[in-house]
Amino acid sequence: MSARLLDGTAIGRAIRDELGPRLERFRARVGRPPGLGIVLAGDDPASHVYVRSKVKTGANVGLFVELVELPASTRLDELLAVVGRLNASDRHDGILVQSPLPAALGRDASRVVFDAIDPDKDVDGFHAVNAGRLVQNRPGLWPCTPAGVIQILDRSGIPIGGRHAVVIGRSDIVGKPMALMLLHRDATVTICHSKTPDLAAVARSGDILVAATGRAAMVTRPFVKPGAVVIDVGTNRVSDVETARRIVGPDSPRLASLAKSGSILVGDVHPEVAGVASALTPVPGGVGPLTIAMLMSNTILAAERRVGLQT
Amino acid sequence: MSARLLDGTAIGRAIRDELGPRLERFRARVGRPPGLGIVLAGDDPASHVYVRSKVKTGANVGLFVELVELPASTRLDELLAVVGRLNASDRHDGILVQSPLPAALGRDASRVVFDAIDPDKDVDGFHAVNAGRLVQNRPGLWPCTPAGVIQILDRSGIPIGGRHAVVIGRSDIVGKPMALMLLHRDATVTICHSKTPDLAAVARSGDILVAATGRAAMVTRPFVKPGAVVIDVGTNRVSDVETARRIVGPDSPRLASLAKSGSILVGDVHPEVAGVASALTPVPGGVGPLTIAMLMSNTILAAERRVGLQT
Repeated sequence: MSARLLDGTAIGRAIRDELGPRLERFRARVGRPPGLGIVLAGDDPASHVYVRSKVKTGANVGLFVELVELPASTRLDELLAVVGRLNASDRHDGILVQSPLPAALGRDASRVVFDAIDPDKDVDGFHAVNAGRLVQNRPGLWPCTPAGVIQILDRSGIPIGGRHAVVIGRSDIVGKPMALMLLHRDATVTICHSKTPDLAAVARSGDILVAATGRAAMVTRPFVKPGAVVIDVGTNRVSDVETARRIVGPDSPRLASLAKSGSILVGDVHPEVAGVASALTPVPGGVGPLTIAMLMSNTILAAERRVGLQT
Repeated sequence: MSARLLDGTAIGRAIRDELGPRLERFRARVGRPPGLGIVLAGDDPASHVYVRSKVKTGANVGLFVELVELPASTRLDELLAVVGRLNASDRHDGILVQSPLPAALGRDASRVVFDAIDPDKDVDGFHAVNAGRLVQNRPGLWPCTPAGVIQILDRSGIPIGGRHAVVIGRSDIVGKPMALMLLHRDATVTICHSKTPDLAAVARSGDILVAATGRAAMVTRPFVKPGAVVIDVGTNRVSDVETARRIVGPDSPRLASLAKSGSILVGDVHPEVAGVASALTPVPGGVGPLTIAMLMSNTILAAERRVGLQT
């Protein structure tokens, strides 16, 4: 038995393709494309990779994308001034400040900055107002990663209502919004985490299992009910050859790319799970592409709402 | 075996007693007591009973309480004007608009009115901003009933962390905030509801079971793991004698009060559960008194924050 692999790259492409006509309609009515402002402070290498990908995808979709790059020495008030300008701008329908912020800004900086973004432009869905609208199941902007997971399930014909969904992880941006979205789709939802005794047994009760632990290949066979649908939200860089070998297998061609580039990306789910699950998202090529697709979708939704094309 | 009954009346009294010194400190610093504005529109009899109880408890605790009574024919703009006045008032630290609003205002009226309340005065914790702050585990004002449940557990010496908590019901004001509060206290949390297949089996997995179904005595023995702690959030009026007899038992003195007053209050949990649970909140006298105690607590907290006595 080998799980069906859910192709996030293809689903992400389908979503982006569907945005085309909406973007054209917007442009025809408003006379400009929807706009996305991206703020990148500091020089975290992974952040630069993510942001480059967002800028490129945005441009391909046809958005106006402005990237504001700030040095690691940026002060909080300078960062807030940029957010303020984007809030006030008529050309920017969506605003995204890439995490993590430079450590020098302090640990509360992200919260202060996210709170400063106009909730109606908050395409990451991190603002307290959007978190609250999600709890109350009202129109808002939802975090991209869990919204992308719902898209994968829906577009793969996997029913949610009446199923038992188990979410491992309770972050503000994945675990908790994921649990709420599954709940609003009539799943019975269990949310478990590092303090859960016998995590594997709890995970094994899920018809749908969403892993967002941030720990490479932590979810192994004993975590998975036979026939379950397993969604892997993890993106962990592994550079140790032995660890990589244990995860991808001794014969994987990915070991060659590790040797070449120094690291590979692995999920929170061990690939061995394919032997027991009915369906599984791969890493890379599973949830990742959806996160960016939903960012594009959120930007167009925010733009449509701003001009009254959508409620 | 018979479950220990968790005495909400005594716990509520203890909470109110602890508010005394905080209230005195506030009054000494600010020169006035914390103030609560209560808006009651229409003539729903149950709402009048609840509001009377809130006004009386507030006065006993030492709050300044203003009750604004509006006719059932009140227009939305008139109601919003009252909320606007209370928002702007320096004497009112907390504002509460009693639900349900008159039906003539339409089904979205509650949402519009709750959104109009200053989030920092929203002592019911119904505003989207407070719902979002709760998701993000940040300082805010939390819904009184689930906050009261946490108090019952804590003050009864019942550990939460590492336990499996099951919440039946997914309302915005009880089920969902309850699940989030238990999660933030390190419980593994399952939230189930009317669309959950085999609800009893899911409920039976809980070490802590919170019933917020709105259906009289629905939670029976098969729903309860032996030794579980059962919290009954229900307040259902039963006027049918046969139904009441099946719930409270043929020999209960409560049947006499039904005969006298025409109805009795029963919970979502059948009293037979006392034979299998280790602890149980009675109805009345369980969660109910806590809801009002937490309203008082929220009002004083809001007042302290407004003047900088608390963060």
